[in-house]
Amino acid sequence: MRDLSNRNLCAINTATLGFRAPIDDVVDAVARAGFGAIAPWRREVEGQDVAKISRHIRDAGLAVTGYCRSTYIPALTRLTFEQNVQANRLAITDAGALGAYSFVMVVGGLPTGSKDIAAARAQVQEAAGLLVEHGRQHGVRIALEPLHPVYAADRSCLSLLSQALDMCEAVEGSSADPWLGACIDVYHVWWDPDLAGQIARAGATRRIFGFHVCDWLVPTADVLNDRGMMGDGVIDVRGIRNMAEIGGYRGAVEVEIFSTKNWWKRSMEETLQVCAERFASVS
Amino acid sequence: MRDLSNRNLCAINTATLGFRAPIDDVVDAVARAGFGAIAPWRREVEGQDVAKISRHIRDAGLAVTGYCRSTYIPALTRLTFEQNVQANRLAITDAGALGAYSFVMVVGGLPTGSKDIAAARAQVQEAAGLLVEHGRQHGVRIALEPLHPVYAADRSCLSLLSQALDMCEAVEGSSADPWLGACIDVYHVWWDPDLAGQIARAGATRRIFGFHVCDWLVPTADVLNDRGMMGDGVIDVRGIRNMAEIGGYRGAVEVEIFSTKNWWKRSMEETLQVCAERFASVS
Repeated sequence: MRDLSNRNLCAINTATLGFRAPIDDVVDAVARAGFGAIAPWRREVEGQDVAKISRHIRDAGLAVTGYCRSTYIPALTRLTFEQNVQANRLAITDAGALGAYSFVMVVGGLPTGSKDIAAARAQVQEAAGLLVEHGRQHGVRIALEPLHPVYAADRSCLSLLSQALDMCEAVEGSSADPWLGACIDVYHVWWDPDLAGQIARAGATRRIFGFHVCDWLVPTADVLNDRGMMGDGVIDVRGIRNMAEIGGYRGAVEVEIFSTKNWWKRSMEETLQVCAERFASVS
Repeated sequence: MRDLSNRNLCAINTATLGFRAPIDDVVDAVARAGFGAIAPWRREVEGQDVAKISRHIRDAGLAVTGYCRSTYIPALTRLTFEQNVQANRLAITDAGALGAYSFVMVVGGLPTGSKDIAAARAQVQEAAGLLVEHGRQHGVRIALEPLHPVYAADRSCLSLLSQALDMCEAVEGSSADPWLGACIDVYHVWWDPDLAGQIARAGATRRIFGFHVCDWLVPTADVLNDRGMMGDGVIDVRGIRNMAEIGGYRGAVEVEIFSTKNWWKRSMEETLQVCAERFASVS
């Protein structure tokens, strides 16, 4: 396994820092702490001078792993579905301007009023097909991120890595140079009994486009905003990373922690320091 | 599909009523409301005269669907594992005295201090093998209940119906008269992309030992104790029941709702009345 005390292999998803500072300040803090890459969010970028932000990131010596995240796809009407797809096209264009390796798709759950999760999933697959070509034109891979099944209703009807890979294959077939793949976040998939098999499948088809770490706390006060720092919970983070690296993953390992009550109350510098330590010791 | 306005097909899991009254009063209330069966919990039964409770249930005209629930299995030491298995043997003996169709196994999550979910699952499978014979001797089927993956850490390392069925087959093979099977609760499995296939598999092998209904609320304030009444959430309860009945399920349909903030604050009579209406209208 790669040694993550080499911070250049490690990326900071800006959500980890709580969205409390302007993106330029966040970029500088991440670069000062020695990390190799950053994953910004649309809320920090849209409506601003994207080319300028991109230059700043590059000048700071950082790569961009992923651009977070997609507008939710499933809709009750065709018109809304198409609007959602179009919003993602615009975001993918920005991802290209940022030089992001991938555009991270959190696909959305059931549209309000629907109980038809199969229909929602079909819409996601159709949207992936529509977006992958736009991504390729802008040099941005589309990373479907399966989210923990606890979010199936309201955030992601895509729950399993196997589902994401099925969609990739349905859309792109067995491409030697895939532009549709998966983002694997240990928080969402650690419990999956078929995890090793599906990570191997993703690796063999070159479809691991991102790898996120954090931890599952016991107890978890809030499944959205009480995620833990690596080592503070029950996930065998290193074991799962090993699966990905055996599968051939050589991209950055990215920390993404939503933590309103703990990490988001600390200074960026402190959180970044602990991230670095935990990358090295338990991730 | 069967018509659930026939309340005799419907069962009340006593958890739905909030554990606020002695079991005898709960039995009487359920019988008065016209339901056909009840599923009591060990906290209501253990340490009391089980034979007397059993007679009371029978005299009230109720069947017993399941007896809830198992002592958690996974442990850090062999001694604790064996103690857990033994506690379940005693509970299964009580289940037999109650005339329960099944003993419901909520298998437990990771032992405190462990990150090895594969080891926990192996222990569960071993325990199932040890308990199924005891169940048969007491006329009680062992129903493995997969719980939503949100509970994988602290309540159930058994998360998918496919996992439960894999365990059944590993322990019992393809028995024509299985004593190890699964309890399907829509709350835990509704999101599963392979749900139809796995319910068909469970039906074809005669391993649906129980079928529970409630609903997934959006938003869910608390994944343990904010479950919804059928019709108040996003689960296609009737669609999933149809899968089970196509698969040959002819047992009772059981409502189980943990709801500290809503249903547990209402009178038993009111909750039972609404259960009856929702069984008929949306389940």
